[in-house]
Parts: sequence; C-alpha cells; structure tokens
Amino acid sequence: MTERTQHPWTGLAGWAAVTFATAAIGGAASVRSDDFYAQLATPTWAPPASVFGPVWTLLYILMALAAWMVWRRAGWQGARVALTLYLVQLVLNALWTWCFFAWRMGGLAFADIVLLWLVIAATTWLFWRVRPLAGMLMLPYLAWVTFAAFLNHATWRMNPQLLG
Amino acid sequence: MTERTQHPWTGLAGWAAVTFATAAIGGAASVRSDDFYAQLATPTWAPPASVFGPVWTLLYILMALAAWMVWRRAGWQGARVALTLYLVQLVLNALWTWCFFAWRMGGLAFADIVLLWLVIAATTWLFWRVRPLAGMLMLPYLAWVTFAAFLNHATWRMNPQLLG
Repeated sequence: MTERTQHPWTGLAGWAAVTFATAAIGGAASVRSDDFYAQLATPTWAPPASVFGPVWTLLYILMALAAWMVWRRAGWQGARVALTLYLVQLVLNALWTWCFFAWRMGGLAFADIVLLWLVIAATTWLFWRVRPLAGMLMLPYLAWVTFAAFLNHATWRMNPQLLG
Repeated sequence: MTERTQHPWTGLAGWAAVTFATAAIGGAASVRSDDFYAQLATPTWAPPASVFGPVWTLLYILMALAAWMVWRRAGWQGARVALTLYLVQLVLNALWTWCFFAWRMGGLAFADIVLLWLVIAATTWLFWRVRPLAGMLMLPYLAWVTFAAFLNHATWRMNPQLLG
C-alpha cells in the first residue's frame, strides 16, 4: 500500500473508526448495567465507576494512534501480523464487556481478559519493533488491562451469586 | 434515552466511530488522486495539498465532540432534528470527495458543497440552541467549508477539460 504515505490522514480516520466502533459495541453491553454494578461487592482498591469512561476514552485514542503509526510506517504487507493482532485484541476487548456486564459470567470474562492481555502484549512488542513510539503508546493500555484483570478476578470471587 | 447521562463515554465512542467512518469513506475517494490533483490548475490562494489532512482531522474531532455534547445534553428525543442533520451533513461531506476526486465532476461537487454548507449552518444553529459550546465547535468547520466552496468553484472553472 504505497498510498499510506500519500494519504496518511485517511488511514487515521480508518483506524479511529474501527477502534471507536469496537469501543461503542463494547460499551453498549454496560449501558443498562448500573444497578447490577451497584449490587456487586468490589475490593477496597476498586476505583469509582466514573473513572472507567475517561480512562477508556484515552486508551482507545492512544491505541488507534499506535495502530495508525504502525500502518503508516510498514503498511499491511510489512505489519500484517501486528495489525491483525491489533484487530483481534479489539474484539476480545469488546467481548469482555459483554461477558462481564451483559452475560454476567465472571469466570468467562476473566479467561477473556487473560487472553486479551497476552494478545495486547504481543501486539505491543510487534508494534515496538516497527516503531518504538507506537509500542510506547500501547503501554498504558497494557498496564490498565493488567489492573483490570486483577479487579475482574477479585470481583468474580467476591460475588459467587451474581457472577457465574 | 436516560442512559446517556450514565454512560456518556459510550456515546462519545459511537459519535467518533460514525464520524471517522464517514471521514474514511470520503478519504478513500482521494487516495489514488494525487496525479489528478497535481494536473489541476489551482488559484494562487489554494493551500498546499499537505494542509488538508491535518485540518480535516481536527475538524472531524471537533464535530464529533459537538454531536456527542448535544446528544448528551438532550438525547435523541430532545435533539432529533439537529442530530439527524448532523448525519446528513456527514453523508454530504463524504459525497463531496467522491464527486470531486473519484468522479471528477466539479459542478456536481460544487452543488453538493453548497448544500453541505446549508446543512452545516442549520446543524450549527440547532446545536447552539441545545448547547452553545457545541455550536461553537462547529464554527471552524463552517468556516473551512465556506473557503472550500470558493476553492471548489475556482478550480472547477479553471479546469474545464479535467473537471466536468
């Protein structure tokens, strides 16, 4: 794709559209879950619910920028595995919200987030090899998902009646 | 939609996804047009081609924020006409790039951009009535499309062989 060097901004729109579409599909699962979330016992170190939206918005912006930078530098041909893994982690990310909030399956959500963590780690490493700055932009996301996995596990174990 | 006040960030992802998807669909029309654009005579006040990408990226971000703010304040029920007009202007915006770059119909593109200008002006006005800051965020877009309409007209008239 030689076009990527001539029209990089169209690519940015594309990566942003795919990333935010996945974010919206994931977010849709949590829209009617406020009562459910309020019922859950959560560990003392759980952040207030209002933190998640702004944090995820920032993380989605950073990951879309990272994917765009890799695509711009190497194109599909040069970064096929890295960009495919990026799309895979988007799907696992959206799926997590459905597992946890819509289907209320805490164990399945935990399995999903462990797999998600591995795919993000691999994506970050491959991004870094193409362009270090793109790898760096993925690090806050990897850190947050690490934290979210612990939170998922603790909340699941604390709510055996509410989370399968 | 009472959910909008509880999960505003999901809405932001949705508006960003729709807006950037339209931007990418529009941008796709211009990807293979560099040679064509280089052949066109342009007025002395035409900016360099490299300006358009960054400017449009900023304008898309601002308009997505504006639509999200209106949706968050009033919801679909309270701002149905305004938000529908927003979607209409997105379509007219993407269509312009196809008219001008893919189909090379300068007159049709000019008719489209005049209509686009009117719909943006109406959207801006309705956004302003719901939330003045949202209307303000649309003003750079309205100003740029005003300029782009003049540029479209001048370039169309200067290239009778290349632009129908």
